[in-house]
Amino acid sequence: MSIPPVMTEFELFALELAREAARVSLPYFRGTFEEVDKGGAAGFDPVTQADREAEAAIRRLIAERYPDHGVIGEEYGEDRPDADHVWILDPIDGTRAFIAGLPLWTNLIALRNEGCPAVGVIGQPYLDEIFIGGPSGARLIKGADETPLRVRACAHLNDALIATTDPDLFNGAELGAWTQVRAAARLARLGCDAYAYAMLAAGRIDLVAESALKVWDWSALVPVIEAAGGEVTNWRGEAPDASGQILAVGDARLRDQALVALKRAAL
Amino acid sequence: MSIPPVMTEFELFALELAREAARVSLPYFRGTFEEVDKGGAAGFDPVTQADREAEAAIRRLIAERYPDHGVIGEEYGEDRPDADHVWILDPIDGTRAFIAGLPLWTNLIALRNEGCPAVGVIGQPYLDEIFIGGPSGARLIKGADETPLRVRACAHLNDALIATTDPDLFNGAELGAWTQVRAAARLARLGCDAYAYAMLAAGRIDLVAESALKVWDWSALVPVIEAAGGEVTNWRGEAPDASGQILAVGDARLRDQALVALKRAAL
Repeated sequence: MSIPPVMTEFELFALELAREAARVSLPYFRGTFEEVDKGGAAGFDPVTQADREAEAAIRRLIAERYPDHGVIGEEYGEDRPDADHVWILDPIDGTRAFIAGLPLWTNLIALRNEGCPAVGVIGQPYLDEIFIGGPSGARLIKGADETPLRVRACAHLNDALIATTDPDLFNGAELGAWTQVRAAARLARLGCDAYAYAMLAAGRIDLVAESALKVWDWSALVPVIEAAGGEVTNWRGEAPDASGQILAVGDARLRDQALVALKRAAL
Repeated sequence: MSIPPVMTEFELFALELAREAARVSLPYFRGTFEEVDKGGAAGFDPVTQADREAEAAIRRLIAERYPDHGVIGEEYGEDRPDADHVWILDPIDGTRAFIAGLPLWTNLIALRNEGCPAVGVIGQPYLDEIFIGGPSGARLIKGADETPLRVRACAHLNDALIATTDPDLFNGAELGAWTQVRAAARLARLGCDAYAYAMLAAGRIDLVAESALKVWDWSALVPVIEAAGGEVTNWRGEAPDASGQILAVGDARLRDQALVALKRAAL
């Protein structure tokens, strides 16, 4: 896939936001930071100083450059969520990986235009990797290098490398569906959070299925994967939605095979 | 913890081996390589060109420098396994992560001296990280930087961050025991392979429990963790052995709490 030489204005700004998120969050990684549990009775749900400072920094840049744009962020809520252009932020996806010292957490930044994710960034600062997708294509930016991202062909689920973050996050019906998909697949990987979707866009993973994702968890993934030639749907095969059930595939043939099982657990 | 200024001869040689393993294996990562399934009827068990070439390269260096030493490697078997000094090699631990493009696979190199692991290296070439432990202490070497490794205190399992690679690798009794430990812990991470033990030595993870590990999977971990102040045992609280059931803790108080559950599944 050839990369158009010029990224759009909003892609370049998303890249600027990703670099700011990296600048703020990386120094805390494997360092000392405040951590609180915002999960309450529903279970442990950590948030750190790095999450909060990174989102605040991104919001400052957006407010300066595009004061009319909306923002939805995991840590600081919604501003103008019905605007034509809305930035959707998960400053650190994989906070648990971040806390554990594992370099698979990411900064997720999406621009939603008239309801649809139009630009997405998955950044991993410790690896100096920024996966970006939008109108100009999908690419991995690492230092001064740019590599086009392209999903790979995989016709059959039994040849597929699949991933989910943690089967314990599924409800009973979802776990049954996942177990069926896993039994058919060649190989499964766990524990990747959003980084699994970056590897799907890069043609290394064939399918990712997860549930209970919030809009800031999945919005950035969609443009990256779509611009790399893949697809992101809910577990009914429709556009991602508030169900939080996400299926991403590099090859559309896998979607139909996986949905045989996943549809039975669709919300 | 202060680091003695001088590593021992065998530590320096282990470091040399780790650099050779990195030199050979890293170029294949996210590239093109031959891959075969050596699992047969027992299930998919991939081995790549990178695994084989890395082990062959390490064996060549050992044969040149210490022709009387023994070698046990995952890919090329045993030479003089009863020698006083035996190098134990897993050229790529986490071959599945390697195949999936995930940078948590490692080169594992151990020196066993009179039956006990004496020097261990956990290397992650894409991150340019080498975790090494032995008589001179435990340290992370990243480029020109050296950082001492030190486990952290954690008195209670319900404050602990725990890890295992994949609960599906446990047998029924083991899964029950793991589930009990997980229910008590603060937070669990999956999918890390040997990298979880490196994060335990670095004071980021408190406990790792796994089963079905071969001698090349666990030998390198022991000197790194012990030199960082932690402990590695089987699920009876004894020295690691052919049971393949491994429990690693940063704080010995966690060992006793976890063994309440794990002992019931001990082989």
